Amino acid sequence: MNIEKIVTLAKKRGFIFKSSEIYGGVAGLYDYGPLGFLLKQKLVDYWRKFFLKDDNIFEIETCFIMPEKVFEASGHLKGFVDPITKCKKCKSVYRADNLIEEKLKIFVEGKKSEELTQIIKENKLKCPECGGELEEVKVFNLMFSTNIGPIEGNPGYLRPETAQGIFVNFKNVLNSLRAKLPFGIAQVNKSFRNEISPRQWLIRLREFTQAEIEFFVNPEERFEKWKIYENIKIRVLTREAQRKNKEVEEMTIKEALERGVIPIDYMAYFIAKEQIFYESLGIPKEAIRFRHILEEETPHYSKGNLDMEIKFDFGWKEVVGNAYRTDYDLKNHSIYSKEDLSYVYPDGKKIIPHVVEPSFGIERTIYAIMLYSFVEDKERGWDWFKFVPKISPINLGIFPLLKRDNLPEKAREIYENLKKDFDCIYEESDSIGKRYARADEIGVNFCITVDHQTLEDSTVTIRDRDTTKQTRVKISELKERLRAMLA
Amino acid sequence: MNIEKIVTLAKKRGFIFKSSEIYGGVAGLYDYGPLGFLLKQKLVDYWRKFFLKDDNIFEIETCFIMPEKVFEASGHLKGFVDPITKCKKCKSVYRADNLIEEKLKIFVEGKKSEELTQIIKENKLKCPECGGELEEVKVFNLMFSTNIGPIEGNPGYLRPETAQGIFVNFKNVLNSLRAKLPFGIAQVNKSFRNEISPRQWLIRLREFTQAEIEFFVNPEERFEKWKIYENIKIRVLTREAQRKNKEVEEMTIKEALERGVIPIDYMAYFIAKEQIFYESLGIPKEAIRFRHILEEETPHYSKGNLDMEIKFDFGWKEVVGNAYRTDYDLKNHSIYSKEDLSYVYPDGKKIIPHVVEPSFGIERTIYAIMLYSFVEDKERGWDWFKFVPKISPINLGIFPLLKRDNLPEKAREIYENLKKDFDCIYEESDSIGKRYARADEIGVNFCITVDHQTLEDSTVTIRDRDTTKQTRVKISELKERLRAMLA
Repeated sequence: MNIEKIVTLAKKRGFIFKSSEIYGGVAGLYDYGPLGFLLKQKLVDYWRKFFLKDDNIFEIETCFIMPEKVFEASGHLKGFVDPITKCKKCKSVYRADNLIEEKLKIFVEGKKSEELTQIIKENKLKCPECGGELEEVKVFNLMFSTNIGPIEGNPGYLRPETAQGIFVNFKNVLNSLRAKLPFGIAQVNKSFRNEISPRQWLIRLREFTQAEIEFFVNPEERFEKWKIYENIKIRVLTREAQRKNKEVEEMTIKEALERGVIPIDYMAYFIAKEQIFYESLGIPKEAIRFRHILEEETPHYSKGNLDMEIKFDFGWKEVVGNAYRTDYDLKNHSIYSKEDLSYVYPDGKKIIPHVVEPSFGIERTIYAIMLYSFVEDKERGWDWFKFVPKISPINLGIFPLLKRDNLPEKAREIYENLKKDFDCIYEESDSIGKRYARADEIGVNFCITVDHQTLEDSTVTIRDRDTTKQTRVKISELKERLRAMLA
Repeated sequence: MNIEKIVTLAKKRGFIFKSSEIYGGVAGLYDYGPLGFLLKQKLVDYWRKFFLKDDNIFEIETCFIMPEKVFEASGHLKGFVDPITKCKKCKSVYRADNLIEEKLKIFVEGKKSEELTQIIKENKLKCPECGGELEEVKVFNLMFSTNIGPIEGNPGYLRPETAQGIFVNFKNVLNSLRAKLPFGIAQVNKSFRNEISPRQWLIRLREFTQAEIEFFVNPEERFEKWKIYENIKIRVLTREAQRKNKEVEEMTIKEALERGVIPIDYMAYFIAKEQIFYESLGIPKEAIRFRHILEEETPHYSKGNLDMEIKFDFGWKEVVGNAYRTDYDLKNHSIYSKEDLSYVYPDGKKIIPHVVEPSFGIERTIYAIMLYSFVEDKERGWDWFKFVPKISPINLGIFPLLKRDNLPEKAREIYENLKKDFDCIYEESDSIGKRYARADEIGVNFCITVDHQTLEDSTVTIRDRDTTKQTRVKISELKERLRAMLA
């Protein structure tokens, strides 16, 4: 798969641009062009309908800048760090752990700065750029920091995850909605991580869109709804398979729950829905797996993490993180804020709810969609995107065959009528072949062409993007037909 | 108008919360609760349909963090500053110009720091808090700054307006869409200003949502579309009226354009639409005016600014800024980036397009909507919001009269059917009176009640929020009736 071709087409047709590109761009920052914006908007709307609508999950929107206390409580201030080392000569900065693993093939997960410094010294590791000596390893906090107000010493941070905005608002939301457990609070918008080496296009970004659900539950109560999906099959990379370098295992949601791969029934429900959701976006089954996070990778407070990974051109990568965060977050915010963040039952019983968190990376999802929708097509002579209708930025193109003989007038009339119900474009310049090519390039599902016969018998042709086959349809039946074809 | 009551109700019912409130909050930062999120979402969707859909305007989404070069070119790095002075004793910080104007009644618009320092010294102005001596006046840049990456000295700024994200992408959007002048690029999301003294709830915020349109035009070409609205009447505070302390003048769009209050026909088009848009949100005509910005307030590059102001509880305040920015932005970005940002006609003629910018403050709009929708109602015994249907977060409440006799089952059935087409809530706890009260408080337009008669003759009652009158309707006709009532 040639990712460069996709990146180039995505720029050319207005999906994704380098941010501030006229100034050389900034690593890890990308902007959505008009088509990318539409794709993202449709994806997020679909996500909302699929995950929030029927499940007692309420969306909120909180500030990007949050005060230091929030991240003291969440642990980000101390723990959200990477070990770095700087070249004394050329001043290049490296992730110390990555450098060691790459150059020395030593697994250093969880090692302290001093230990990493020791390894660098003992192995005489030098700067890969200039061969210079490397400084002592320090920790670098990945949160972007700023100062709030004109007086120095009032630090604020750009949130590294939307989740913290949810936790600090837990009590306000609970009170205002009189919500009953289990219920969820969701948020969709940017989070920020000051990555040391952003890379892989939309994968490791400094600004990225998260769609997060914090689902608040009483772990003593059971959630029967997961059983709707108990026979859904998922492909699991078990802990054992990771240790022994084995293949993924296919199993049902029920089996995964029984075997402890999924730690709790609430999470089983979301895992099943994720599988269905990503397949419906055109990602093939074989390109989706759930990786059971190893004990040593799992945060101490978590009762189990299961990441949904997708196979990209460069390898497997997390796209959805599923974490059973227990009562860690609400408990810590209770302690640090001195506010009682418990849930009270009608009989007066109090609990700190547990949290099951599915966290979706929207840009990674878009990367996966583009990758698996991309068709290198030598026969047609142009490459194109086979987006599924529900997220395709433009569903219909309406074209007059020629720019004369009253064909444009008739085509415009049809366009004006269709655009009330569908996402359409109208184009009349260049040959019809060029217009089909441009439509394919942005993934337009169907092209409707008005020709001379249209003026005689009130029919048009519908061209199917995937087959290029054309069928002739009465204008009076057009809407109904298109609705069925786009369903 | 008691704004405190609105703020309290907005918190209680989940519209607007103080950000990070459990940690004491942060001045100038507010979060949207579940109802506020829905209100905002509907408002922005309506704005998109109203302003973008039929006008060749394309929405994009760009990064919040932008590199320093962008703001060198835009002028923000030098010019986006406020003069501040600090108390030597208690360390309080003040806007020097505001302090002087408030305490000494001297108009100091446009004066330099040294001049302000001089005025403070000559008039022996002291700290209003503790009476301490004030330091020399300095300028404070209102952009939040941060550092990009692990190496110090690579400053980035949180954008103070979405517009810069549009200008730096002008060429990419133009190329990808093959757009023809006039066309627009729009963006809706947060901007950031490190205000010295945030105040007035949702008015002066440190994070706020802008909906901005940059409309690119050739000033030599005329825009006939404004004539659709030439007879729309607007209330204008002319420059003369401001100088001589006179009243607003009512005039048509045509007259405003002829008299030079509106500098160009493209802007006339947007001004008229703004008047219609805000009236349709329930803001009374008398509470809307357009203020012709005085010569001395107008930026040097602008050929005329006309702000739409709304009368709030505390006075008139800008909600939409309209600026004719000429070719200032694209020209400067061309110079600083060395990229050619001109538009090329088919005959090879090149121009740097001019820009007409309507810039909407979404939180200010929400403040205005809440203010003019708020009903203090002694008769009912509760206060409520009379939101217009198109932005009301919840349009329908479906309630069984009692929690027994099969009424909940029947009501749920109706709810499940209605929620496919409408934004509904279902509630069965507490008395029907309490449920009506809670529905009123969040502005639910109509409440549908299922009672014993429902089971006999398949009718329900519809209660009108504004009159509390109930009418009985057949279930079979319910959808059609509601559609008409919510239109």
